[in-house]
Amino acid sequence: MQNNLFADLQTATGRLQDYLHRAIPLVTAMQVSVSAFDGKYLVLRAPLAPNANHQGTGFGGSLHGLATLACWGIVWLLLERLPETNIVVAESRMRYLAPVTSDLVAEARVPGPIALERFRSTLARRGRARVDLAARIVEGAGDRAVFQATFVASLGRQAG
Amino acid sequence: MQNNLFADLQTATGRLQDYLHRAIPLVTAMQVSVSAFDGKYLVLRAPLAPNANHQGTGFGGSLHGLATLACWGIVWLLLERLPETNIVVAESRMRYLAPVTSDLVAEARVPGPIALERFRSTLARRGRARVDLAARIVEGAGDRAVFQATFVASLGRQAG
Repeated sequence: MQNNLFADLQTATGRLQDYLHRAIPLVTAMQVSVSAFDGKYLVLRAPLAPNANHQGTGFGGSLHGLATLACWGIVWLLLERLPETNIVVAESRMRYLAPVTSDLVAEARVPGPIALERFRSTLARRGRARVDLAARIVEGAGDRAVFQATFVASLGRQAG
Repeated sequence: MQNNLFADLQTATGRLQDYLHRAIPLVTAMQVSVSAFDGKYLVLRAPLAPNANHQGTGFGGSLHGLATLACWGIVWLLLERLPETNIVVAESRMRYLAPVTSDLVAEARVPGPIALERFRSTLARRGRARVDLAARIVEGAGDRAVFQATFVASLGRQAG
């Protein structure tokens, strides 16, 4: 019943992309686009040129930023219908496996139903909950980096 | 004998800042400056406005990027006098402790003498070596995030 988790799936990529560009200047500098969301995977893209390093391959900071945004975006889509939520990253880890030589693509996956149910029930009960997300940077058929992070969501106006 | 490790310390911040801005477009978008280097600690700064998130505090991607650049910068300064080195991040980990509410400051430290000697001798012998670096994001007297990463340096033209 994944689809009940989200507001209108058809327009989710547009809503998230608008929000990210309005809220975070570096998203605009990175030229991030939200390219797909099917209720299970969220895909973010960014062109190589503004995200290149000294070697002309993907800058590590951009790979990490794109993966962070992809995971953060899933939590945002999960909580979009609640008023006044705050989502922050608490911890992250990335392994860089191989250079990215074309546009950057980050694919994050929606947590499984047990983890989601625990996240949502803790958030409702305590006003604050943690959730683990994972993403990978892909190019062609291969992984270029793998990413894991823990996010904390909180309800109400206080900073998380 | 830390000072023997580096070329002219007086001009190190200028050399690194020039290189970073020339090589990595996102460094310019983040408005990164190399503000201090004493042979033991390297300090990078970036103003809050281009690095803010949806809450108006420091964007996690920028905190991580600045810490990565600070550690990468130390390895660059260590290897600056060698021709044709390549330095890439292999793995990173960050814990975000509290929001950053003013300009971003990352402080990375030069590894101790035993780790450095191992790094330099392995690089000379094998043409490739790993080194662990640590940095923190500071604001006032407190840590806002702590960062650890492993970098791989290689000699010669091949990509790392």
